[in-house]
Amino acid sequence: MAARNLVVAQSGGPTPVINNTLRGIIETARELGCFDRIYGGRHGIEGVLKEELLDLGAQSPEEVALLRYTPAAGSIGTCRYKLRPEQQEDFQRVVDVFKAHQVGYFLYIGGNDSMDTAHKIARLAHEQGLDLVAVGVPKTIDNDVGDSRFELVDHTPGYGSTAKYWMHMVQFANEENRGSAPADPVLVMQAMGRRIGFIPAAARLADPQRQWPLLILLAERPFQLEQVADAVNDLLRRHGRAMVVISEGFDVGSLGEVKDAFGHTSFGSTRVTAAQTLVNFLNQRGLPVKGAARSNIPGTDQRHSMAYASTVDLEEAYRVGQHAVLLAAEGQGGYMATILREPGPVYRVRYDKVPLEQVAGADRQFPVEWIAESGMDVTDEFLRYAEPLVGEEMVSLPLVGGRVRLTRFEPVYARKQLPDYVPQADRKQ
Amino acid sequence: MAARNLVVAQSGGPTPVINNTLRGIIETARELGCFDRIYGGRHGIEGVLKEELLDLGAQSPEEVALLRYTPAAGSIGTCRYKLRPEQQEDFQRVVDVFKAHQVGYFLYIGGNDSMDTAHKIARLAHEQGLDLVAVGVPKTIDNDVGDSRFELVDHTPGYGSTAKYWMHMVQFANEENRGSAPADPVLVMQAMGRRIGFIPAAARLADPQRQWPLLILLAERPFQLEQVADAVNDLLRRHGRAMVVISEGFDVGSLGEVKDAFGHTSFGSTRVTAAQTLVNFLNQRGLPVKGAARSNIPGTDQRHSMAYASTVDLEEAYRVGQHAVLLAAEGQGGYMATILREPGPVYRVRYDKVPLEQVAGADRQFPVEWIAESGMDVTDEFLRYAEPLVGEEMVSLPLVGGRVRLTRFEPVYARKQLPDYVPQADRKQ
Repeated sequence: MAARNLVVAQSGGPTPVINNTLRGIIETARELGCFDRIYGGRHGIEGVLKEELLDLGAQSPEEVALLRYTPAAGSIGTCRYKLRPEQQEDFQRVVDVFKAHQVGYFLYIGGNDSMDTAHKIARLAHEQGLDLVAVGVPKTIDNDVGDSRFELVDHTPGYGSTAKYWMHMVQFANEENRGSAPADPVLVMQAMGRRIGFIPAAARLADPQRQWPLLILLAERPFQLEQVADAVNDLLRRHGRAMVVISEGFDVGSLGEVKDAFGHTSFGSTRVTAAQTLVNFLNQRGLPVKGAARSNIPGTDQRHSMAYASTVDLEEAYRVGQHAVLLAAEGQGGYMATILREPGPVYRVRYDKVPLEQVAGADRQFPVEWIAESGMDVTDEFLRYAEPLVGEEMVSLPLVGGRVRLTRFEPVYARKQLPDYVPQADRKQ
Repeated sequence: MAARNLVVAQSGGPTPVINNTLRGIIETARELGCFDRIYGGRHGIEGVLKEELLDLGAQSPEEVALLRYTPAAGSIGTCRYKLRPEQQEDFQRVVDVFKAHQVGYFLYIGGNDSMDTAHKIARLAHEQGLDLVAVGVPKTIDNDVGDSRFELVDHTPGYGSTAKYWMHMVQFANEENRGSAPADPVLVMQAMGRRIGFIPAAARLADPQRQWPLLILLAERPFQLEQVADAVNDLLRRHGRAMVVISEGFDVGSLGEVKDAFGHTSFGSTRVTAAQTLVNFLNQRGLPVKGAARSNIPGTDQRHSMAYASTVDLEEAYRVGQHAVLLAAEGQGGYMATILREPGPVYRVRYDKVPLEQVAGADRQFPVEWIAESGMDVTDEFLRYAEPLVGEEMVSLPLVGGRVRLTRFEPVYARKQLPDYVPQADRKQ
């Protein structure tokens, strides 16, 4: 009997719409009816390794429908666990678990690394006589999947929502900043995206005409803090106020290090954030107007603040998940389902497929020609790229007693068939 | 001829609904028709001192209506300028400006200090033969206006929206935390309210049944960081994850100080935030599970993230502004318009008045009996107080091209009648 069960798993940092991709997968798989069981790997590939397979087919359609409004990856969980090439036991274990549970289809929602993992698992399964159809599904708020020419994927689900979050946040922050300027003239906001600037760049969507005193500092374009202070002071002289959106990956050098009580630099996770370091630097040097700089570091809010999710992003996240299931049902393994933009002035996308191997080997950069000459802004070309992704409406969240009605899955798991297993990377503790 | 013009001004930190109070004032004043002109002090009392009076009557009704969706104080501005008793020249200047512009009505939107200022201005005006009707209007996200027994004001407009923000943020953060726990088991979130715990307490609204691993650290209840780490570790052992909401005013002692390159403590505005200090402390000591703590410091987002504004708060903010105008029109100066809760199990409020002097002299504390025995949570009594304030729907924001359509006032000002004036506190620079 051919293996007709399907496993879906999520990997890496969550997004506001990752669960809508999951919904697209579950609902489409149910509708097609060609899969026997639909499992979710609890906390991604770690759940597969530990044989923790949540029975998604056993969940009520209502709870599945609510995935649309449920941000982050709480329902089936995500992980940062990586299957490195040398972890052969882990790879073998995945194949063993899939065999034990008659899994013939594996859908992996994630970034470049996940596409690589999915590809390798499919190859190993094949070598061992398991005809596994592995399909990747793109996801990341950073928009760093695929290539710099947008030929493998135009944009990843998740990015549009975080871009919308920043568009609205900077709109509101501008109201705060212009309203409170005499006392609080400088507002620094830290955006996610450690190495790639698509998220801080989205702040420009708030003010496409460039009428506000707004600087955007990308990890890709380093400056000395003195240069940043000069630019801020220039805005203060001209506008009496300034807003700075700074990438969490912007290099603030040794000033970001926390000294311990003896004045020694503490290593590990004890650096001060880029935003706070910039604020401290500005305040220590004094501003040319009275008042002080302050910072907002929304952190994970920007990937789960569901009221700001993009309706376009939600739609596309669903469709790309749906497309991945269609590919799987057709036996088209070894591909990532993808979103490609049609040429022409009207925003239209089509759902297609690209080889997992190509995505795994790709390295997307923020296009240098989209960085403005000043180095502290982005160009109109970027705006033309990003604007359609944020959509034109707010998502309408279902509330019960004031709280958002989020998906609550029943903890129904596949019965374990194999002995317990400790993932390789977890063994050295 | 009696002075029939009205001046409204805002003071202190903004809120998501402060502009809806302004809208209530403008629309009601227009409807009553008993005022000749309606002015807004640009940046609060500073604008009055500098004779910068925005002509609110000259603004289009559409822009005034959009104040409902416009957070923060960008439209007429706010300030932190205080009229201290010794600044007699300032007080005199206010009266001179009011006389020059035939201002007979002064509405001051703010906290306890603003009520004191409004009271003193009215008294001085009276002494000098200007029959000024001064009415205060409460506002603050901190909910620190009035007395601890809620007899002067039940809650201040602004608080309900920030409470709703925290309710939803912690709901979403819980999805993030439970979804990402193996890699990111601890999420620390910093709430505003330097000395009073109403804002961090609102996090409990997300999980009234206390099913999640959530600690709430109030400025009112100090702990050593070691004790906090013990409590976090206890949650990690039991749940594999932990969330901490910490007040920005929680005392983290000398660990919050930034050392300069020579290991000296830097003073001024260069302390590390409470949340980051706690995160550094936890990471340096190591967590009992693999992974690291991370922090979200939304900062001003929690007072301008308009999609999370409470519809109850919006309504009440409007009505209390309206009530203030009605009091003014009746010549009932020397009062603050207030919101009082009717007794009984059903949430109902009435709009009333309390003497400005009483509010100015009051000092609200977070009721100690609302702090749970553990010291790291709040009680059900607090929930019964706060729950009705967040409402049961989301506000529906008007978008144009994806951006929120915010109020844009025309810069139409009253013609200056007096020589230039530098506010007293600004002279020493």
